Amino acid sequence: MNLSSLPPLEVLFKNPQIHVKNPHLDTMEEDVLYHFNLGTKTHNLPEMFGDIKFVCVGGSANRMKSFAQFIQQELALPGNMDNITDICEGTDRYSMYKVYFLSPGMGVPSISIMLHELIKLLHHARCIDFALFRIGTSGGVGLEPGTVVVTDKEVDCFFRAQFEQVVLGKVITRSTELDVGVSKELLQCSSELDDVPTVIGNTMCTSDFYEGQGRLDGALCSFSTEDKLEYLRKAYNTGVRNIEMESTVFRAMCRVCAISVIQNKSVSNVTNFL
Amino acid sequence: MNLSSLPPLEVLFKNPQIHVKNPHLDTMEEDVLYHFNLGTKTHNLPEMFGDIKFVCVGGSANRMKSFAQFIQQELALPGNMDNITDICEGTDRYSMYKVYFLSPGMGVPSISIMLHELIKLLHHARCIDFALFRIGTSGGVGLEPGTVVVTDKEVDCFFRAQFEQVVLGKVITRSTELDVGVSKELLQCSSELDDVPTVIGNTMCTSDFYEGQGRLDGALCSFSTEDKLEYLRKAYNTGVRNIEMESTVFRAMCRVCAISVIQNKSVSNVTNFL
Repeated sequence: MNLSSLPPLEVLFKNPQIHVKNPHLDTMEEDVLYHFNLGTKTHNLPEMFGDIKFVCVGGSANRMKSFAQFIQQELALPGNMDNITDICEGTDRYSMYKVYFLSPGMGVPSISIMLHELIKLLHHARCIDFALFRIGTSGGVGLEPGTVVVTDKEVDCFFRAQFEQVVLGKVITRSTELDVGVSKELLQCSSELDDVPTVIGNTMCTSDFYEGQGRLDGALCSFSTEDKLEYLRKAYNTGVRNIEMESTVFRAMCRVCAISVIQNKSVSNVTNFL
Repeated sequence: MNLSSLPPLEVLFKNPQIHVKNPHLDTMEEDVLYHFNLGTKTHNLPEMFGDIKFVCVGGSANRMKSFAQFIQQELALPGNMDNITDICEGTDRYSMYKVYFLSPGMGVPSISIMLHELIKLLHHARCIDFALFRIGTSGGVGLEPGTVVVTDKEVDCFFRAQFEQVVLGKVITRSTELDVGVSKELLQCSSELDDVPTVIGNTMCTSDFYEGQGRLDGALCSFSTEDKLEYLRKAYNTGVRNIEMESTVFRAMCRVCAISVIQNKSVSNVTNFL
């Protein structure tokens, strides 16, 4: 795969300004991004991060480190690939490498903490015209292992394009409907790569890896193989092509803050449902 | 704090056998604990883990490593404290140190994956008469930073002692009511330690660190300081003394499998609500 052969992704560059949706931020003397070990008083965020054009989120810390090294080499960026440093090394909650890669942990709560702090970081650093990518592995629904799924719509376990969250004891619903065109443009890119089978499909987000995704091998399982297959067939018929654990909150929060997002995940060998 | 001065926690030793609630496990030729990088065919689990008496879950990987080293020293266990190895080092999803400590990541989904695999691990290793501890930091509600909260009841953001999960598109509710006596016995232990202020209280589990816990400094915030205080006062009046992100699923899953659990967390400096 030769990254330099990719066509320009013009549609992605449309974040003239981040709309942080929190009036309290303006009145705060200092903003500490606790889980990144960064802050507006302790770090010069515009100098450190103001030039960002791409942020990649996904996978485990080691996987993101390897990917950062790979991209540094592909783009022939200056610096020693082996000495790439973790910007968040003062904490081990998340890892961050410049050319920017972030490991978000597993599940909606873990990635939502990261997103709050990442969006504020991009805001404080006054970043403009950048794109957020989310990459990683997932369970496929009726697909061969290795297939890449570019997400069309992020849906919850009831196949609805929305994300529900409880705020001060009340359920709040946020849409996950996406920017038209971005996923098609990415699919177009992938058609120029021979060795990467790629499809567009809906991505289902669950809050549990075992029972929540219909797996039969958890410590608890109260359903039959037939129940599982019936649910997965229903998912497939609504357009679901892969299952993972973070996509809905990622889309919903970025959508509120007017940030362009691309989520694509390869189908792992762990599970190829159906 | 001198661990050897602690009285025996007899009430904890009541796990004659783990009740794994999954009939499919009996029919499987091999059980791979994906996120631990362990399996029933590749590892002798009874030999590696059969002698376990305590499992400690909590905090970040580095914090758990330090705690494992501290306990190794306090209990004067054999082996070089500095060479303590991560049993899950083939993956960086979780970390595990023998004398047994596990870092579970942040949020219900991340800890639930760990719990499925930990419960199966203890089952395959044929462990008996052990206790599970969960430790870490949390946001306090009306408490001084540094206070330890021994959990009486784990409640959700509506103050109910239950954990809800979606399984194959249906909402399943599991109770988080606890073994009577365990938390009182732990409080009794703490009364013998001069420098550790300890209380018993309800622990509220949320799925978000910022909006979900009423914080005003997230990237999104749609409520006022007054709304936040009203919600936290309501929480306090129902008995909530600290807020974190994993307790309900921990209690609910262990309860189904008849595993004794103790959860206690110290109030961090990050937040002392109210």
